Amino acid sequence: MPFFDKMAVLMPSTFPLKDKVKQIDWRGDRLRVLDQRLLPRKIVYLDCRTADDVAKATKDMALRGAPLIGCAAAYGMALAARKGDRRALPQAAATLKAARPTAVNLAHAVDHMMTVARAAHGDLAASMADAAEDYFETDLAANRAMAQLGASLLKKGSRVITYCNAGSLATSGLGTSVGVIRYAHHLGKIEHVYPCETRPYLQGSRLTLWELMQGGVPATLITDNMAAHLMKTKGIDAVIVGSDRIAANADVCNKIGTYGLAILAKHHKVPFYVVAPTSTVDLKTKTGELIPIEERSADEVTRIFGQEIAPKGARAHHFAFDVTPHQLVTAIVTERGIVRPATGAALQKLLS
Amino acid sequence: MPFFDKMAVLMPSTFPLKDKVKQIDWRGDRLRVLDQRLLPRKIVYLDCRTADDVAKATKDMALRGAPLIGCAAAYGMALAARKGDRRALPQAAATLKAARPTAVNLAHAVDHMMTVARAAHGDLAASMADAAEDYFETDLAANRAMAQLGASLLKKGSRVITYCNAGSLATSGLGTSVGVIRYAHHLGKIEHVYPCETRPYLQGSRLTLWELMQGGVPATLITDNMAAHLMKTKGIDAVIVGSDRIAANADVCNKIGTYGLAILAKHHKVPFYVVAPTSTVDLKTKTGELIPIEERSADEVTRIFGQEIAPKGARAHHFAFDVTPHQLVTAIVTERGIVRPATGAALQKLLS
Repeated sequence: MPFFDKMAVLMPSTFPLKDKVKQIDWRGDRLRVLDQRLLPRKIVYLDCRTADDVAKATKDMALRGAPLIGCAAAYGMALAARKGDRRALPQAAATLKAARPTAVNLAHAVDHMMTVARAAHGDLAASMADAAEDYFETDLAANRAMAQLGASLLKKGSRVITYCNAGSLATSGLGTSVGVIRYAHHLGKIEHVYPCETRPYLQGSRLTLWELMQGGVPATLITDNMAAHLMKTKGIDAVIVGSDRIAANADVCNKIGTYGLAILAKHHKVPFYVVAPTSTVDLKTKTGELIPIEERSADEVTRIFGQEIAPKGARAHHFAFDVTPHQLVTAIVTERGIVRPATGAALQKLLS
Repeated sequence: MPFFDKMAVLMPSTFPLKDKVKQIDWRGDRLRVLDQRLLPRKIVYLDCRTADDVAKATKDMALRGAPLIGCAAAYGMALAARKGDRRALPQAAATLKAARPTAVNLAHAVDHMMTVARAAHGDLAASMADAAEDYFETDLAANRAMAQLGASLLKKGSRVITYCNAGSLATSGLGTSVGVIRYAHHLGKIEHVYPCETRPYLQGSRLTLWELMQGGVPATLITDNMAAHLMKTKGIDAVIVGSDRIAANADVCNKIGTYGLAILAKHHKVPFYVVAPTSTVDLKTKTGELIPIEERSADEVTRIFGQEIAPKGARAHHFAFDVTPHQLVTAIVTERGIVRPATGAALQKLLS
């Protein structure tokens, strides 16, 4: 049992931990994956029966969000173990890890499942399925703890900007940054939330705004380029984001645009909070500059829902992530506690 | 003849001043207006036969760009004068001025045409048509001068970020910021240009990239939220933008997102240049905070080419412009000279 469960029980049981729509659904012989590319227009599930299927859904961004791709990869390893043959696992591990390069939760989950496999006696398939369920539940408990810790940083009447989607859809449930916002709203601390739409994948408009509306949180969508104007004219109290990987020096890798938002927050003296479970911390990577930044297809920038928005033959960059130096981060909220100031020393002390 | 013509003749006659596609086309009895909302997918012209038609095309953003809506308004006044009745002019002037609130070129052009009307003897319609043509040609000569002055600020091998569209399509031709870039490219000074797509209207991807590709300028599209990452990792040498209104203290109003881009440029010590004709300067407005910021329909944020990209019932802000304090502006390039540092005193000295 994770040590932070004692804290999590403080959260009232009336507070919803899971939304009606499941982002992934384990059925023993397969993992059903909500195709997030079609949200909020359509609710469609993909059936993943093999680790390869899970890797493909991850690579194609049917499922996304650093903690969720970790959970899904754990189930992917459980699927690979279904025939009870340990020799199938290294290949499955390699395929899953290669699906996306930036988020470290993926490698964290796969390595954890390989450790479980090595220790397993008796029914390998059952052990791996149980371990995947535990991994999922551990992420959920971590989100519960982060929601409470993060909400403690916000004052009553807060006006908050958030970015991309680090909500239920990006995790086992509740979310990291969105979990903080939803729990703070439950406590009556949120006046208004401004999700940035987050080009090119529009996770903010399609996913975060959808979650906030489902949770009854007052929210108004903005395009990414409106954040500075809002900070100057609307009295923003905090920017709250998630993370895909945190380096040993507390540099934060997250969705492209996070770095710019952190600079804008600093310029306007707005606190910039990062919310992420400790499974997102990668002590093996010394600084943010060493984190590999995934470059994706230009088509994802020049088309929206299949429609061309740029001239034929247009070139486009599609950096999926950027790195925010820890100096721009006010605090990092993990399930084990708040790292403030966000320095490598403080982060490593928390983890030790 | 404008006093800056002497400078403009320095520009080689081989350098193209006009693109193949005309943004507006005066036909004596009507103004043909390129519907920029459909670019680059379709080339469609609207026939404007009255000042009301021109006002509607402006309001609906079929035509856009501060200098161009000024030129179109001048033709709109010429259309209103076609029956030779001066009494029709004040109503036309009011309708045109009300079409969009932020850009001052619109009021500048309409006021200029009213002055012409008051001074006109003989054939009112002919005088007004001639004055509208002169207004257009004066803007073109100003762009020529700004292109040369602005290009002088750039070093060989420059990597430039630009924003929105301040090109041929936004002006009488050549453009302001894009004019500088295209002329600098002609001089061999441009290594690469990164137009920001500029949500929600995508003027950067639909219009600026299209113009740059037509002009053979090496360009790669980025989403607005990639600018900071590029400044950190790609060695950007300058950010060059246009303006819709410059206040007496040199604060710069421009497309939403410009202010944030200026903060990012300052953080990375990248020069931030504003290129705009003196018709954009509004000495009657003392500071940028006093410029009215147009708020447009939320639908323009939640739909792209008619497709919903947000949940049903989503609320969204659509601020069309923001204000960049002059402290963040490295220099303002006008047709009369470069204002550097960008202070109210320097700006007013140039205009006096």
